[in-house]
Amino acid sequence: MSNRGPVSFGLDDRGRRVARRGGGGLATALRGLAARHDVTWVASAMSDEDRAVAAEHAGEAIEQEAAGGPPFRLRLVACDAEAYDRYYNVVSNGTLWFLQHYLWGLAVEPDVGAAFRAAWTEGYERVNRVFADAVVDELDREPGAAVCFHDYHLYLAPAYVRDVRPSARLTHFVHVPWAQPDYWHVLPADVRRALHHGLCANDVVGFHTERWRRNFELCCEWLGAPGTRTVVNPIGVDAHELDALADDPLVLEEERRIASARPELLVVRVDRTELSKNIVRGFRAFALLLERHPELAGRVGMLALLDPSRQDLPVYGEYLRAAEEEARAVNERFGAGAWRPVDLQVADNFPQAIAAYKQFDVLLVNPIFDGMNLVAKEAPLVNRRDGVVVLSENAGAHEELGEWTLGVNPFDVEEQAAALYDGLTMPAPERRRRAVAIRAHVRRRDIAAWTDGQLAELDRPASTIRS
Amino acid sequence: MSNRGPVSFGLDDRGRRVARRGGGGLATALRGLAARHDVTWVASAMSDEDRAVAAEHAGEAIEQEAAGGPPFRLRLVACDAEAYDRYYNVVSNGTLWFLQHYLWGLAVEPDVGAAFRAAWTEGYERVNRVFADAVVDELDREPGAAVCFHDYHLYLAPAYVRDVRPSARLTHFVHVPWAQPDYWHVLPADVRRALHHGLCANDVVGFHTERWRRNFELCCEWLGAPGTRTVVNPIGVDAHELDALADDPLVLEEERRIASARPELLVVRVDRTELSKNIVRGFRAFALLLERHPELAGRVGMLALLDPSRQDLPVYGEYLRAAEEEARAVNERFGAGAWRPVDLQVADNFPQAIAAYKQFDVLLVNPIFDGMNLVAKEAPLVNRRDGVVVLSENAGAHEELGEWTLGVNPFDVEEQAAALYDGLTMPAPERRRRAVAIRAHVRRRDIAAWTDGQLAELDRPASTIRS
Repeated sequence: MSNRGPVSFGLDDRGRRVARRGGGGLATALRGLAARHDVTWVASAMSDEDRAVAAEHAGEAIEQEAAGGPPFRLRLVACDAEAYDRYYNVVSNGTLWFLQHYLWGLAVEPDVGAAFRAAWTEGYERVNRVFADAVVDELDREPGAAVCFHDYHLYLAPAYVRDVRPSARLTHFVHVPWAQPDYWHVLPADVRRALHHGLCANDVVGFHTERWRRNFELCCEWLGAPGTRTVVNPIGVDAHELDALADDPLVLEEERRIASARPELLVVRVDRTELSKNIVRGFRAFALLLERHPELAGRVGMLALLDPSRQDLPVYGEYLRAAEEEARAVNERFGAGAWRPVDLQVADNFPQAIAAYKQFDVLLVNPIFDGMNLVAKEAPLVNRRDGVVVLSENAGAHEELGEWTLGVNPFDVEEQAAALYDGLTMPAPERRRRAVAIRAHVRRRDIAAWTDGQLAELDRPASTIRS
Repeated sequence: MSNRGPVSFGLDDRGRRVARRGGGGLATALRGLAARHDVTWVASAMSDEDRAVAAEHAGEAIEQEAAGGPPFRLRLVACDAEAYDRYYNVVSNGTLWFLQHYLWGLAVEPDVGAAFRAAWTEGYERVNRVFADAVVDELDREPGAAVCFHDYHLYLAPAYVRDVRPSARLTHFVHVPWAQPDYWHVLPADVRRALHHGLCANDVVGFHTERWRRNFELCCEWLGAPGTRTVVNPIGVDAHELDALADDPLVLEEERRIASARPELLVVRVDRTELSKNIVRGFRAFALLLERHPELAGRVGMLALLDPSRQDLPVYGEYLRAAEEEARAVNERFGAGAWRPVDLQVADNFPQAIAAYKQFDVLLVNPIFDGMNLVAKEAPLVNRRDGVVVLSENAGAHEELGEWTLGVNPFDVEEQAAALYDGLTMPAPERRRRAVAIRAHVRRRDIAAWTDGQLAELDRPASTIRS
């Protein structure tokens, strides 16, 4: 169960229906799952064609092939567009995302009054009910099945299922940070209570880090939720797939382009244009590096690849404009001759991102808060230059990779500038030692290890889970 | 020890030096203290005349009379203006205040880089050292004296004193909320560590509420500070002084003015123009009340008395303008004939505030977060109409007064509008029951009770404190 499915349907240029692979780690994880289990995936019908598919099958699951993997059953649940908008844009991305990443300026935002209340009851509650109904339907077909919910869109569904199937095996995995109790107080009391109680209806709830797990346990205790078993199981990447991608002709072509234009030293960042990613402070840190180290003029560049995200929300548009403005300011202040210090590319170009991963000397991953951050794992895996990772202490990945990265406080631009410099000037043996260690860790704790962890929970007999 | 002293020196219109009583509860508390103890007050020299007094006495304490009370020793510590600005404006009010009230929009603020670092070492650390030196000097004069630090300006001084006087009796009282550990992570690791270690150098640290005390204990545990004994001792008001003020001719004159202009029902708020006070959402709630209840048109008004605060910080100026804009919008939308729904007064006018306290039917106290909020205690004490208090769940006062107020989530404008309505329409016996209970509590837990609590800690033998 996840809001976004592993495939989404669309029309090709001749108007024929095609299944497109969805983004994100879950789609990758599916293959490992489907190879060993009889999998039914329940997801929102997000595109027009998704809704058409759902309507044609009256909401029932269809047989679908995982790209390059075994088949699985796909069940697309469709809601009316207004309910979906309220659930997805207002509550999930407009409220829970902000809350769980500490993104609000509380003096002026949010207002959890009438509009939020309507989105909660007519959107979030309703769509979670639709998901729960689909689960119950599937459990009727296969009563022993284990149910695995994913992420902040579906905190209520477990409680709805538990109400009518008390002995169901329910697990949840939270992919975002868990905020501490005071910040949950922004929500109306009944709403924060319902979210925590919904999650506690699971037999086990998983997190990427001990830090987020501990915050959740604190919330249960301090907000009066019953609690449940929790586990830490950090998600990994598909090392084989990334190895193959690194040699893909499209990637090699992008890499030639980057290699021919790059200066001697290259700082890379790859992110969605997301408020939590700390893009503006990243450009300021790069400017400070150039200010502190004039000897780097002409020798270093920053390649920032930003995938446009949520641009229908005004605050995201403003944030992207602020980032573009900051990049322009750096170039105006420091650029000289042919040397343009910052190369900012706003596009959804996955081959270009992989090519940049291969080329970085320093990778900047400085989110304000981040559940995991997979860039910090993907990029070092395919990097060809023993590049150094500058990593925010508030990224989930820091709990695993911290000792081999240069850890930074994401609110400290000075420290980030110093870390960029330390990374760019680190002696080769030390760079190599760290790069080797990160690669070894990322290969060992790959997506299969994460899936295995999930399966180990699912494969427990129900009686040992529910205690 | 507190940054602001109980008196500050200035010049009268004939150029003669005069001592003016400082604002705030501490000055009031002083009288109770000075009546029973030999008190030396150490405070920053804030005005030019303060600095002149400090220079004339070479930093030594002077004998000073507490207004209407016994004399005490006043020691004004002076720093150069730049160090004081960094300590007071950058670190204390520009950083710690924002942190402890959860006020940042973290996507874009703050930057704790070079400017903050300079303010920390050249401002906060330095001024705290100057305070600590003054304490050590006074302890040399009176070795058995107990030392009582106040508030967020002086978190480091206790550790500096402890270093050189290991057996000194040190206490601290924190008047603001204590934020939870994730939010302290905004500060550089060494800074957040130093602040917590500084406080833990005290024998005991006091808070207004169990909630802030518990947050501090959590921070000590999760941020690796050693911890110390903590107590909850909510500050109260000077009931006798307020009773007297209520009949002061200046207050009576202001009250006549309010009474002659007021509509049938009056909502009152009295605040500094402070980001944490939630003034904008308060006007929105009042607008929503008028929208939901057109029968109140012409019958209800909101009197908002705002004392200008920190207007040298741009974000405070912006916030005041946003509040004024919101008030204007309410009047334009709902005003009709002689009826202007919102009367917004931006002025430092204490008699007017007391007069408004006497006149409210509903008092709106809706801060985002607030250590205590004394308006919630002062206003009901002198109110003459059994007015109802609408009180934020995140104000410290809510822990004491919650059961007799209408509690609201400060982020929920809808709920605040509903509470205003419930307050305005509450049957007289119920209003009376609540008003009587609040007054009784506030009289019982007055400033003397708080001072007694402080004294009880100070009067403990050092050996039982330091364990």
